[in-house]
Amino acid sequence: MSEKPKFAVIGGGSWATAIVKMLCENLDEVCWYMRSNYALEHLKKHGHNPNYLSSVEFNLKQLKLSNDINETVSCADCLIFVVPSAFLHKELEKLSVTLEDKIVFSAIKGIVPETSLIVGDHFNTHYKVPFNNIGVISGPCHAEEVALERLSYLTIASADDEKAKMIANVLSSDYIKCTTSDDVLGIEYAAMLKNIYAIAAGIAHGLGYGDNFQSVLMSNAIREMKKYVKKVHKMKRDINDSAYLGDLLVTGYSAFSRNRLFGTMIGKGYTVKSAQLEMSMIAEGYYATNSAYKLNQQKGKKKAKTPIINAVYEVLYENKDPKKTFKKLTDKLD
Amino acid sequence: MSEKPKFAVIGGGSWATAIVKMLCENLDEVCWYMRSNYALEHLKKHGHNPNYLSSVEFNLKQLKLSNDINETVSCADCLIFVVPSAFLHKELEKLSVTLEDKIVFSAIKGIVPETSLIVGDHFNTHYKVPFNNIGVISGPCHAEEVALERLSYLTIASADDEKAKMIANVLSSDYIKCTTSDDVLGIEYAAMLKNIYAIAAGIAHGLGYGDNFQSVLMSNAIREMKKYVKKVHKMKRDINDSAYLGDLLVTGYSAFSRNRLFGTMIGKGYTVKSAQLEMSMIAEGYYATNSAYKLNQQKGKKKAKTPIINAVYEVLYENKDPKKTFKKLTDKLD
Repeated sequence: MSEKPKFAVIGGGSWATAIVKMLCENLDEVCWYMRSNYALEHLKKHGHNPNYLSSVEFNLKQLKLSNDINETVSCADCLIFVVPSAFLHKELEKLSVTLEDKIVFSAIKGIVPETSLIVGDHFNTHYKVPFNNIGVISGPCHAEEVALERLSYLTIASADDEKAKMIANVLSSDYIKCTTSDDVLGIEYAAMLKNIYAIAAGIAHGLGYGDNFQSVLMSNAIREMKKYVKKVHKMKRDINDSAYLGDLLVTGYSAFSRNRLFGTMIGKGYTVKSAQLEMSMIAEGYYATNSAYKLNQQKGKKKAKTPIINAVYEVLYENKDPKKTFKKLTDKLD
Repeated sequence: MSEKPKFAVIGGGSWATAIVKMLCENLDEVCWYMRSNYALEHLKKHGHNPNYLSSVEFNLKQLKLSNDINETVSCADCLIFVVPSAFLHKELEKLSVTLEDKIVFSAIKGIVPETSLIVGDHFNTHYKVPFNNIGVISGPCHAEEVALERLSYLTIASADDEKAKMIANVLSSDYIKCTTSDDVLGIEYAAMLKNIYAIAAGIAHGLGYGDNFQSVLMSNAIREMKKYVKKVHKMKRDINDSAYLGDLLVTGYSAFSRNRLFGTMIGKGYTVKSAQLEMSMIAEGYYATNSAYKLNQQKGKKKAKTPIINAVYEVLYENKDPKKTFKKLTDKLD
């Protein structure tokens, strides 16, 4: 690795665009891969992403754009992956260059469906990236507020504290404050689970439950998340830190969260299929529900008690009636 | 006490009206005191409170209405007090009958300014109500959603578990679920503190901070509340239970909370005085800020670390600039 590491962002969505913006506050050059040739050409011509956070104007001199993932990966020492977990496997299949000597940070929430692995494990198992070179970037953070330069806090986690600090350093600015953590797995799982709870919040909202219930649901959700994450990766953590509770709240209380919106449609009577067709963006919580539920069930008697995840799973994957399922759920909350 | 205890509600606001509604689901008769003669006469004539939750229609046969607090207190074994803490002392001064043999539950949030005591302590110290006869009724619960019969959860706390259960029993219905607790003091303090955090959320909102920051603020607020309550009354509790975290969220995220609205006006540049004049309802958090801050400061070196409460105190009572004060606060959060 050279004295000054080079950075690349893999992904063209709103969160990827926000991260490139953050990096551009501190770095002379950012390599940026996106799949869409149309978006790339538009960016080169007009200086902004046509599809996401289009109000963010980039200085093209800072960007090394490519729609060849191998070119972008080759250009950098530190890679930040920001593609939906459902598409990660497909993108990585295009790789002909190795990741073994790279620092790989993920800003992806969820499990890779093809391998049923959380993103960090996926990189370690299938791309031989050592855990010491792996990390995650977590919110609570809506990309849209980064575009507006509204103060936001990120948590950067890695087993290697130096690397977490290095990433925190290049992302920090007037409007971004970063803290570091060594709980890579816990933060990855929390980021995934919160999308399921956002779907639950949406279903409840769609069914006509109000703010009183919503607060009870969130209070139960954070306790459920604590139990779940403890089963997956036991270590000392405060579940009320921003990376866990804050991230849950920013999603669960957001009218703009696509997971919550997806849930609301289900609550209002859309079928899962029709709700998915109506939405142009992927609701990651849909896949996360399946992964999180099954992973927990596999633990048999040692599984965590997760009434909320179970209820969402029943509605999304077992065709159960949302109204009846949530009525039953209300008896399990307190 | 007779076989079937009689219940009275003291107070004529929205939360009092909601509690009378809950009781009327289960009891043949509820004694109800309110100060306003106008409201009382209107209620008697039209069957609803003209000022608060006016959509709630009462069956007048169930109500024993009075604007003489002594009459209402005399009529019942169990008293539920629901007047703003700032007015409690004044109301109680009217008493000529004793409270010593009554069961006294409080649905009041805050400290009695005249005695600097939390409501339970005030009843014990000044009215000789034994602690075993004292309890609290806590949310998360907007009265407006009770009017709409939207599912809501209450926590009923008392040192005497039987009495908590008895109150839980008469408040429960299709749309009200009650849990019980023995953490009277913790729940009282939490209910008071959450109004301060709601003011903080409002100030931040008024200053232009967004949802990302709001979630970080709430995540820090619950950790601060945990520390504060632990200093005041150390016992085993899960701060993420609905009575603590849920109550914080339903207030902090509510666009209708008068504490949050009060804060928003301060953040937008109103002086404390002009914001108070603009608001027709009392923002209890204003008084709570003073009480909570001073109570903590009295502990000297043993005080809890409360950057959020301190910032709100500085803005409300020390005339500090909200923008600068909150800018400093952002550096203390994570």
